Amino acid sequence: MDVITYRPDPSEFAWTFGGVPPVRKVKPGDVLELWTEDAFGGKVRGVDDLVSKVIEFPFVNPQTGPFFVEGAEPGDTLAIHFVSIEPSRDWASSCTVPLFGALTSTHQTATLQEPLPEVVWIYEVDAAKRTVTYRARAGEYTVELPLDPMHGTVGVAPASFEARSSLVPDAHGGNMDTPEMRVGTTCYLGVNVEGALFSIGDGHCRQGEGETCGVAVEAAMDTVIAIDLVKGRATPWPRLENDSHVMSAGSARPLEDAFRIAHVDMVTWLSEEYGFETLDAYQFLTQVSESPVANVCDPNYTFVTKVAKRYLPRGDAYGGMHGRLNDVAGAYRGR
Amino acid sequence: MDVITYRPDPSEFAWTFGGVPPVRKVKPGDVLELWTEDAFGGKVRGVDDLVSKVIEFPFVNPQTGPFFVEGAEPGDTLAIHFVSIEPSRDWASSCTVPLFGALTSTHQTATLQEPLPEVVWIYEVDAAKRTVTYRARAGEYTVELPLDPMHGTVGVAPASFEARSSLVPDAHGGNMDTPEMRVGTTCYLGVNVEGALFSIGDGHCRQGEGETCGVAVEAAMDTVIAIDLVKGRATPWPRLENDSHVMSAGSARPLEDAFRIAHVDMVTWLSEEYGFETLDAYQFLTQVSESPVANVCDPNYTFVTKVAKRYLPRGDAYGGMHGRLNDVAGAYRGR
Amino acid sequence: MDVITYRPDPSEFAWTFGGVPPVRKVKPGDVLELWTEDAFGGKVRGVDDLVSKVIEFPFVNPQTGPFFVEGAEPGDTLAIHFVSIEPSRDWASSCTVPLFGALTSTHQTATLQEPLPEVVWIYEVDAAKRTVTYRARAGEYTVELPLDPMHGTVGVAPASFEARSSLVPDAHGGNMDTPEMRVGTTCYLGVNVEGALFSIGDGHCRQGEGETCGVAVEAAMDTVIAIDLVKGRATPWPRLENDSHVMSAGSARPLEDAFRIAHVDMVTWLSEEYGFETLDAYQFLTQVSESPVANVCDPNYTFVTKVAKRYLPRGDAYGGMHGRLNDVAGAYRGR
Amino acid sequence: MDVITYRPDPSEFAWTFGGVPPVRKVKPGDVLELWTEDAFGGKVRGVDDLVSKVIEFPFVNPQTGPFFVEGAEPGDTLAIHFVSIEPSRDWASSCTVPLFGALTSTHQTATLQEPLPEVVWIYEVDAAKRTVTYRARAGEYTVELPLDPMHGTVGVAPASFEARSSLVPDAHGGNMDTPEMRVGTTCYLGVNVEGALFSIGDGHCRQGEGETCGVAVEAAMDTVIAIDLVKGRATPWPRLENDSHVMSAGSARPLEDAFRIAHVDMVTWLSEEYGFETLDAYQFLTQVSESPVANVCDPNYTFVTKVAKRYLPRGDAYGGMHGRLNDVAGAYRGR
Repeated sequence: MDVITYRPDPSEFAWTFGGVPPVRKVKPGDVLELWTEDAFGGKVRGVDDLVSKVIEFPFVNPQTGPFFVEGAEPGDTLAIHFVSIEPSRDWASSCTVPLFGALTSTHQTATLQEPLPEVVWIYEVDAAKRTVTYRARAGEYTVELPLDPMHGTVGVAPASFEARSSLVPDAHGGNMDTPEMRVGTTCYLGVNVEGALFSIGDGHCRQGEGETCGVAVEAAMDTVIAIDLVKGRATPWPRLENDSHVMSAGSARPLEDAFRIAHVDMVTWLSEEYGFETLDAYQFLTQVSESPVANVCDPNYTFVTKVAKRYLPRGDAYGGMHGRLNDVAGAYRGR
Repeated sequence: MDVITYRPDPSEFAWTFGGVPPVRKVKPGDVLELWTEDAFGGKVRGVDDLVSKVIEFPFVNPQTGPFFVEGAEPGDTLAIHFVSIEPSRDWASSCTVPLFGALTSTHQTATLQEPLPEVVWIYEVDAAKRTVTYRARAGEYTVELPLDPMHGTVGVAPASFEARSSLVPDAHGGNMDTPEMRVGTTCYLGVNVEGALFSIGDGHCRQGEGETCGVAVEAAMDTVIAIDLVKGRATPWPRLENDSHVMSAGSARPLEDAFRIAHVDMVTWLSEEYGFETLDAYQFLTQVSESPVANVCDPNYTFVTKVAKRYLPRGDAYGGMHGRLNDVAGAYRGR
Repeated sequence: MDVITYRPDPSEFAWTFGGVPPVRKVKPGDVLELWTEDAFGGKVRGVDDLVSKVIEFPFVNPQTGPFFVEGAEPGDTLAIHFVSIEPSRDWASSCTVPLFGALTSTHQTATLQEPLPEVVWIYEVDAAKRTVTYRARAGEYTVELPLDPMHGTVGVAPASFEARSSLVPDAHGGNMDTPEMRVGTTCYLGVNVEGALFSIGDGHCRQGEGETCGVAVEAAMDTVIAIDLVKGRATPWPRLENDSHVMSAGSARPLEDAFRIAHVDMVTWLSEEYGFETLDAYQFLTQVSESPVANVCDPNYTFVTKVAKRYLPRGDAYGGMHGRLNDVAGAYRGR
Repeated sequence: MDVITYRPDPSEFAWTFGGVPPVRKVKPGDVLELWTEDAFGGKVRGVDDLVSKVIEFPFVNPQTGPFFVEGAEPGDTLAIHFVSIEPSRDWASSCTVPLFGALTSTHQTATLQEPLPEVVWIYEVDAAKRTVTYRARAGEYTVELPLDPMHGTVGVAPASFEARSSLVPDAHGGNMDTPEMRVGTTCYLGVNVEGALFSIGDGHCRQGEGETCGVAVEAAMDTVIAIDLVKGRATPWPRLENDSHVMSAGSARPLEDAFRIAHVDMVTWLSEEYGFETLDAYQFLTQVSESPVANVCDPNYTFVTKVAKRYLPRGDAYGGMHGRLNDVAGAYRGR
């Protein structure tokens, strides 16, 4: 196990998936100790730091990477396992952004109405207590919420020679904003270009399902990942696995298409890996799926569908990759 | 506490919300012991009972009701608390229905492709073990899934002089198909016509989130509900409450509109009942919501958003109605 | 040819399709001279008559009817030919309505933003010059636009025992808001209940495609229609025919589903009536369709697709019904 | 007037907007004589040339370009005027493509159904008669349709460091597939990167509105364009102008968002350039818009809204650019 440590300088951030040269070469089996800046480049630090004032578009959602994975070729699958995700500061921020979010008109769902006001909320992060503290801006209400760190953005270079903004989720992963991307999860991404060229970013101390206002509890993160490669097997849409569930993530608009993609992919996965006939898989999934919406605010919306392993026939997804990466994580922690 | 028992004859089923005379008068505080037929009128009993053969449209999803609630007037809110939901047979059924479901073209999402094949799955229901058994039609795979009984359809007569098919969810409730409609839940529905005229039906032994193929584990149910009335307070979209969560349910197409309705309604509810300023509620909801999709197959899609009471300021929704109905349920069980 | 004249008293308006007893019996071959009130019940007469002040919901979009057509049974098709549509007053009105229209959030596309301001525009109608005059409310700009009278709402009682608000377009017709519903057009509607129970209303002096702000140049109309019946032939979605085109109208959300419905219906129609194989029809339609959007503001959106008869194989739709109704119209005018 | 002639070698095609170095430098005022290959790279030449056999993804929809426009900077607007578009062969092709098109499930609107069969139609192009001939594959039906040449794809490099597949329409233009992109039209595109880096391709001999099956009458084209630059004025979404109309084009999913974008942009344009107050523009547009749908098959759907100049206050859009480019076109033709 080689351990690689990388902390990007602000000049090294990536703002797209694809179209950016790699910052490091890594190889399957490596463990990476990374630092990721928050989605606002660390610039929203107080209640007066309105996004419209402190952010210059398109410099939003900086990514750490991309990393060139030796041996990764189109048609393979990259596996990224989250060993550790820890806030690197004792505060985090959230806010409204003009014409961004689920409960406002946007540049796409365009109306003639005025944008909502811009407001910033600063959260205290207590890593020891495992809490973040919400404080109302109007009135006195305060409540501690569980710290549940995750990465909103995980992806590889897209297919078709495209370069996509780090704000976009699609088949290459990207800004999926699912709370399932937490410690203990393995993310499978289909490789589209030589070296895969993966990046991560957009740490959240926590978020609700849907990321309704468009902004989670945003934080810089110290994150450790273990990576590996499944040669010769393609993965059409991002898949996730943890000790209890297998999951598929679809991203599209309208939201029902994100749902359809995730569920068709899960039917396919159940058929290929667990031996279900297609309609048997459809029926089974209908009765057992947990389907947490990820985001309803980004350029594509994202849905995740989950199937509990305890309901599945015996069998290890991707040849047991998740178990092996769990072992790597254990070995790393036990050094 | 008056206990009213009602088991409809097939000739007494309602097929719409609105447009149907009441079968009984009831009053706030009553407990109703009801029987509901399954969504197929009990006609899908074996693997050869294809819906296209045994069902004559529009005679699908029969409802038990409507009930006229004394004193209910437009502008009031009806509260229906689920005391008990028990399968009334030792089997249940599911199937594919041509051009119905999330992973097929439909009469709305119309394409030129052939429909999927019709297949029926029969589940064994073991009320003692609290399981239903899935059996693959192709191959040998069998698995016991937890019994988690619920009603897919709960509603009142709609506004605007409309009568809506029992297949439709909308502001009046109806075919929302959310697994949250289980024992221990109180459902709040705005009253649109004198007497409210509520009905229930469409029992499910369980379903996944989204009811992907369009058909859950469908079963006739013996169901006990306690009802009450909140005078002079309107409820724009269905709301639910259990011991741990408050919830809003929105129904619309596309699916993001169902999400928007549910979340705007929850922001409104948090503001009115828990004292949040609007944008503070938006921010709070963004970080704490659990947002299980209900159905992605019916004429309107349904989303539910949930907020855990442990994160909320003190305060009882609807003047403590849920607690009082819990007490009624306890008194009923303790008779 | 029997000519029936009917001018409803305000107490006789219908506010739904379905759920209303007929006002008259008519028979195939009859000509009806009708008066229809405007969508606001004639209450928006000046710039201070804001809808929120002068309209009590759901008393909006009054319909003239329903009419019971003798001999009409489920599975038949009703043909309604527009012989004449003339504004019955020398003014018409339009306005913004809070949370209604394509360029605002709505009760379905719900956001936390403020509604747009309410504004009323009054148009002068010059029936002799065939113009309506737009006058800006801010500034001096005035322009004469061509008078192009049409009915936004034409429909029959829906299937499935439903009653639908006159604001809703769907398979039963209703509030489609297509400018194609003008003089010289025959509208075909599938019959769902004995007598068909059709109504018309919502006259527009003109509208753009999409009825963007939700309100056309609304006017009371003196309208003459000729009706007939195609026995034993069902029509799944509304179809229109004029001297130059055949058309299908689909209504649904999202808007692509309305498009899909209209185009699948046209492929079906081309196949059944003009002898195209299905994929040949799909290809042909792809290259020749004109597809004017009708409304993007109502509870369902509506798309129309048109095929020019000059590109079609010989053949008369519905056995030459449109030609026969043209003849009836000629005979009526020539009396 | 400098006239530049450029015919790309297949190795010089561009497959994306953005991410590709320029093939030529040009300057405002130049006229370009270009050749564009058809969307299939000329490989669908007969009825057995199924796309799944002859096309290797992502090598579809080749673009001629990009061209670096001297002096073009972010915040400027590029104007491209179509002087001539002539089919360069005497045949053109169309076909079904698996899981592509409006009346089939797709990779986004994913279902479990089988794709439609692949079929190819070859059209005869008669440039003298100005016709293309449709021939049914099953049966004998043949019909001559008017030749109406246009470019489906016209665009510049996108913002945000993105590179987008030539199949995608968005704010940078791209694969809008609107029949309005014909001779006599000026297309305005906001410049996002130095030099604008525009390309064109995807010639169609004609198409219906919506490009329903996803494939128009595809043809290689000999095309002449005149280009110019509006310094210091941004254009948020593509706009078009011809002698009779001004137009805005929005691209998004769901389709109502494409409609919203186009109509909000037109309200903005009417306000900025023709002096309408916002709500006056909204009202005016509601009554006068023609809104032809462009495509309902690409990764984003596209809507165009048109306003007839005869209804507008006096005033020349973009300082009279369209008129000047008309003059350039006249001078070029008169050489």
